[in-house]
Amino acid sequence: MTPSAVSEVRELAVRAQKASHLLAGTSTEVRNRALLAMARALVEQQDMILLANEEDMAAAAERGTAESLLDRLKLDTGRIRGISEALESLAALPDPIGEVLTGSRLSNGIWLQKVRVPMGVVAMIYEARPNVTADAAGLCVKTGNAVILRGGTMAVRSNLAMTDVLSVAATSAGLPEGSIQSVRSVDREAAEALMGLHGMIDVLIPRGGAGLIRSVVENAKVPVIETGVGNCHVYVHEKADPEMAKRILINAKCSRPGVCNAAESLLVDESVHKAVLPPILAELAERGVTVYGCDRTCALGEGTTVSAATDEDWETEYLDLKIACKVVSGLDEAISHINRYGTKHSEAIVTEDYTAAIRFLNEVDAAAVYVNASTRFTDGGEFGLGAEIGISTQKLHARGPMGLEALTTTKYVAMGSGQIRE
Amino acid sequence: MTPSAVSEVRELAVRAQKASHLLAGTSTEVRNRALLAMARALVEQQDMILLANEEDMAAAAERGTAESLLDRLKLDTGRIRGISEALESLAALPDPIGEVLTGSRLSNGIWLQKVRVPMGVVAMIYEARPNVTADAAGLCVKTGNAVILRGGTMAVRSNLAMTDVLSVAATSAGLPEGSIQSVRSVDREAAEALMGLHGMIDVLIPRGGAGLIRSVVENAKVPVIETGVGNCHVYVHEKADPEMAKRILINAKCSRPGVCNAAESLLVDESVHKAVLPPILAELAERGVTVYGCDRTCALGEGTTVSAATDEDWETEYLDLKIACKVVSGLDEAISHINRYGTKHSEAIVTEDYTAAIRFLNEVDAAAVYVNASTRFTDGGEFGLGAEIGISTQKLHARGPMGLEALTTTKYVAMGSGQIRE
Repeated sequence: MTPSAVSEVRELAVRAQKASHLLAGTSTEVRNRALLAMARALVEQQDMILLANEEDMAAAAERGTAESLLDRLKLDTGRIRGISEALESLAALPDPIGEVLTGSRLSNGIWLQKVRVPMGVVAMIYEARPNVTADAAGLCVKTGNAVILRGGTMAVRSNLAMTDVLSVAATSAGLPEGSIQSVRSVDREAAEALMGLHGMIDVLIPRGGAGLIRSVVENAKVPVIETGVGNCHVYVHEKADPEMAKRILINAKCSRPGVCNAAESLLVDESVHKAVLPPILAELAERGVTVYGCDRTCALGEGTTVSAATDEDWETEYLDLKIACKVVSGLDEAISHINRYGTKHSEAIVTEDYTAAIRFLNEVDAAAVYVNASTRFTDGGEFGLGAEIGISTQKLHARGPMGLEALTTTKYVAMGSGQIRE
Repeated sequence: MTPSAVSEVRELAVRAQKASHLLAGTSTEVRNRALLAMARALVEQQDMILLANEEDMAAAAERGTAESLLDRLKLDTGRIRGISEALESLAALPDPIGEVLTGSRLSNGIWLQKVRVPMGVVAMIYEARPNVTADAAGLCVKTGNAVILRGGTMAVRSNLAMTDVLSVAATSAGLPEGSIQSVRSVDREAAEALMGLHGMIDVLIPRGGAGLIRSVVENAKVPVIETGVGNCHVYVHEKADPEMAKRILINAKCSRPGVCNAAESLLVDESVHKAVLPPILAELAERGVTVYGCDRTCALGEGTTVSAATDEDWETEYLDLKIACKVVSGLDEAISHINRYGTKHSEAIVTEDYTAAIRFLNEVDAAAVYVNASTRFTDGGEFGLGAEIGISTQKLHARGPMGLEALTTTKYVAMGSGQIRE
């Protein structure tokens, strides 16, 4: 490892840990004031941020970066306003910190409470999207955490400029130094060092593509919340309303194909597939969706965009105008197919049959299970969480859309009067 | 890696995953019936288990295993009865599965509920203590999880015999095959393979010494709950009642020195140390406790068992009749010392000063913080949790004593009537 990258990251972590102890004692008011100061500072000092962003954009363009990546990298006055408003909305949300979750006077007289407290030091590793820098900093300030940010290398100038502005604003509003920090080193070693700081980082959240998340899961020695990969299914049961099935499938696949809650597979009961599938395949073709089908799907797909699926298709998250399609023998095969190939994100059945619906809800293993609704609803905003940190696909700590509570932990507070244990 | 060990573990995981999908649909009644059947079977078939245990004991003794380890390995009729009764108590506890944590009708008409569900597949790696085999199996049956057990090599015959008995009893009571399994291979590779099964194991819980836990944290690619290391402090504030301080410290250090909630460090305010420390040092000496003290402690320690501390002492979990002792300038130094050297387990202040007490509770970063009570109370039973899986020293998912809920996760259940996302 490069010593300078490693020692930089370690220094940031030491500062973050110190800050986190002080942050734990800050009031809701101070943290909300910091969020508003951060929102204002971003707008007031946008020239400096936009200049840094232009340099990032120029360097990225020179290296022949794809248009879609350049678009995610780009900041402008409108986007900065949007980021600033998001920080203001965060300030308006209720404070999760300090909530007493359980409490009682034990028989020995100790007054015991379980209280919601900040996680401590949160690290985020994410792609070259400067808006995530402010977003993540805001979520951590709201929840009383110190944050160490490590955005994609391509955005390093934008991130550092933004972090400077946010950090100064937060500090002058009363938060401790070291509450918001970005890693300056662009070495790969810096990210690896971050993943290895066991005992200094309380949670590491990777946000980005499947490759980034896999690398973090493989290498991290600190606790991780895995986010985002979704191989979601829509299953059309034999008792489905065919019109509703089509509407839900088309929405789940086509309304935003690049997101994790989009459908990637369609399953249809064999007893109805000859009636149900053709209009769906026709509509998919019309919308430019390529279908990778089983034999029976292919047999129905003439004149559409169906080609033969391989086993790999059942487990692929296309994030594109593509979908796998399989005719199944019934509910049992559908459930076992989903539990085998799904990524435990969002799964839907379309049916009018009560017992089939209940079995699907109980037996499918996923963060969100739906009857007669689109998988696209799996989202912090749609679920009423206020802010969304990401969508967890693991089962530990948080599952599905994560609100502010996912950035908190608990602490047992015990007030005694001299009790000892016999 | 040895192919046979790796393929064995993978096979167990495939079976466990299948079982977990069926377990998720089992009723409280079936799971409790299985626990009672397991309790009965252990007693009825104890001859076979005791025979296997005798073989383990003989082999261990032959290798010159220490007496204390042999004692943990040993089973007898009384111990089997105890293990069996613990399973019966589990059956009597309320079922955490199925609890609706939040729920509402969204504005779009979707009826959304967040429901407590089993984790799925739980793996446990633990030392050569056959009682943990039944204990862990019982906790997982209660919470509807499939479990893969990997106990210490020295106990392999006892564990396999017990697992066979428990598994047959559970299956005949209606649980799916593969609900309770032990790894047969004693290769180190088997444990490593278990740690690497990302996507197949939902949580891995190491129970045992610091070395085992460190190795799991270093190597695991699956989510882990870290348990157990406790460098706990008792801090005697200048406004402490000296008698109470002595009583609490002696209880925290001496009532059971080998457990994780025992005190390992004593901090005393300099303004009172000359009055407070001598009687404590005398009592510690009387009870055979060696004290590793700072200069000022040593100056007071004549005629007792005080020797000079090194920096290492501040971070040592002795688990023995040893304690580190430091005179501090006041509350600020005490808090920062604890936050620097502590393991975030259990920390206590003794004081009659209200503001000092509140600051300690707020600013010390630990799973359990105490005013005027012994750290020894950090325990699932003492905290009223019914069953205890272990004491988590991480902040993700569960913190402090873990009850049955720590073996559960949640699932969003959404019931619609054809909703699509705009």
